[in-house]
Amino acid sequence: MWKNALTEAIQVRYPVIQAGMAGGPTTPELVAAVSNSGGLGTLGGGYMSPERLEEAIVEIRTLTDQPFAVNLFIPEATIRDADVEQAMMDFLMPIQSKFGLTPMNMIPEVTNQFDAQFEVVCRHKIPIFSFTFGALEKKYLVQLHEQDTYVIGTATSVAEAKFLEASGVDAVVAQGFEAGGHRGTFLGSAEQGMIGTMALIPLLADAIDIPVIAAGGIMNGRGLAAALALGAQAAQLGTAFLSTPESGANPNHKSALLEKADATTNMTVAYSGKLARGIVTDFMKEMDDYEGAVPAYPVQNTLTRDLRQAASAIGDTNYMSLWAGQAFSMAQSIPAPALVEKIIHEAEQVIGEMNTSVLGS
Amino acid sequence: MWKNALTEAIQVRYPVIQAGMAGGPTTPELVAAVSNSGGLGTLGGGYMSPERLEEAIVEIRTLTDQPFAVNLFIPEATIRDADVEQAMMDFLMPIQSKFGLTPMNMIPEVTNQFDAQFEVVCRHKIPIFSFTFGALEKKYLVQLHEQDTYVIGTATSVAEAKFLEASGVDAVVAQGFEAGGHRGTFLGSAEQGMIGTMALIPLLADAIDIPVIAAGGIMNGRGLAAALALGAQAAQLGTAFLSTPESGANPNHKSALLEKADATTNMTVAYSGKLARGIVTDFMKEMDDYEGAVPAYPVQNTLTRDLRQAASAIGDTNYMSLWAGQAFSMAQSIPAPALVEKIIHEAEQVIGEMNTSVLGS
Repeated sequence: MWKNALTEAIQVRYPVIQAGMAGGPTTPELVAAVSNSGGLGTLGGGYMSPERLEEAIVEIRTLTDQPFAVNLFIPEATIRDADVEQAMMDFLMPIQSKFGLTPMNMIPEVTNQFDAQFEVVCRHKIPIFSFTFGALEKKYLVQLHEQDTYVIGTATSVAEAKFLEASGVDAVVAQGFEAGGHRGTFLGSAEQGMIGTMALIPLLADAIDIPVIAAGGIMNGRGLAAALALGAQAAQLGTAFLSTPESGANPNHKSALLEKADATTNMTVAYSGKLARGIVTDFMKEMDDYEGAVPAYPVQNTLTRDLRQAASAIGDTNYMSLWAGQAFSMAQSIPAPALVEKIIHEAEQVIGEMNTSVLGS
Repeated sequence: MWKNALTEAIQVRYPVIQAGMAGGPTTPELVAAVSNSGGLGTLGGGYMSPERLEEAIVEIRTLTDQPFAVNLFIPEATIRDADVEQAMMDFLMPIQSKFGLTPMNMIPEVTNQFDAQFEVVCRHKIPIFSFTFGALEKKYLVQLHEQDTYVIGTATSVAEAKFLEASGVDAVVAQGFEAGGHRGTFLGSAEQGMIGTMALIPLLADAIDIPVIAAGGIMNGRGLAAALALGAQAAQLGTAFLSTPESGANPNHKSALLEKADATTNMTVAYSGKLARGIVTDFMKEMDDYEGAVPAYPVQNTLTRDLRQAASAIGDTNYMSLWAGQAFSMAQSIPAPALVEKIIHEAEQVIGEMNTSVLGS
């Protein structure tokens, strides 16, 4: 049951992957709980120092002997513009003041931690490595494959999926328009990477020969069954796991997912300089009115960090990033193992019912 | 087999609806071919004069004794602005000249044909009536229900679906972000009506008690199976039927769907003043650079009509509207009955295979 090329290759019981959300939600407890439940937990290591990454990996290994994944961000050439950055700091100053913050008095440094993070991943022989924001250079892929690590890239278009397949990855996450958090788009325009999951999965499944993992708008067993019908071999869920007790997401972020059913999500570059989907906040609206350019990722992420942390500390969700997919209002507050079980049970039920009503057998 | 509340109510064999695409594609031949194949054909009557609408209905009835639908546009209060319209005419003039057209020398009149169209629908006791761009006033609904017409509205958000259910419609089309052609959004901002099909269907299925029909990004049996898994009772396909021989779409439009697999779609107000998705054209790009306001629908539609027709006449796809959903590259040139059969056969296969691999039975 529930066997296909992907689940066999990564040695999991169920085709359910908890997305590697960076910035706190993917605690060792969450990753291990999902993996212990038969799914694949993913540590979102994108923002972690090599030291914290290593600590988290060691802790996951004390909590589970099942396969798990680590997700990292592919570094990009950061475009710096001192005038643009100063203008943004001037714009942010009065907002920061409201939170009792003093203005930043220097342009932030951006450091590339990827090589150091990658060294940790290799040294600890992580069974599954996933990445986003680009393609992985050949030397890294060779190193991972030499130690039998399964490698998963992230695509938002057919062109990206073909590029990743040609680069040698073992599977591709199809990140649909509905997905919460940062877009993985790395080829073409932002619009070319905004394809709904219902269209993206069959397009990718037809275009490449390696397994496709569906992501974006999937919250439950109905979504998993739909993803499989469309040609995916697994579903990757982020938002659905954000609101579990094991998740390290800010409690106010969790409350927003559970209680703001009428809220709208939108994509914004306001928080990090890179397009990401979250529940619409006052900060997103204020930034919509900002007429200057927004500094590129990760500079803007650094510039807004103090503000986001101060807002989080006092629970002011209007200045926090409330990453969420378009189906976030289906989020529940149940433990991760119960969520995995519920997804699988519901998918089995849906598939069985469809089979009976359509095929009558 | 293939029975549910919706297919029983509208008396069709298969939960496959051919969308009521206005402007030419839905010939009587196409509508009748789909209905004769066990699906539901829909005449897109939005732009038709009452006389042409009546002729088409009479012709459909000579070609099929099966149920079919007529789709109309809910009229909106048109916001007129003579300066905005004149500026647009000035902008369009050099483009029109390239096609040998003389400038329009008067501001176009916009007439509301809805009541006259509706009278035809009622007089001919059409079995199924669907509509988009708004909600249907109670007096119309009462009249339709008195003569046992099944009424289907179009929603792009939970709020719209609830509004339509409360208004008394019998079913709701969930039009996802992926869908080609015009957005049905009528409440809230354009962004609030841009929800991917994978998220929109389960949200609507949970929010309302009447049947949900999935639309957007569905091109084949995999999409139909996914739609049912998500909680829809049928799938509505537009783009998939555009390229069939029975479709009245311009041959160059059909060729674009079949041959431009690498093209991107985007949403634009360039052609009609109302947001619609199509393959990106030079005209869309030129309009992106236009700094003035675009006249509201349907004024802009009237202003660009000559240009679109002149471009169509010489096969210049860059100035035609090439409406297409995000999965258009899966379009095929096979007769509509073969397409319906293929969709059903593939969905049965997908559901059977999922059942075997997941439930092992």
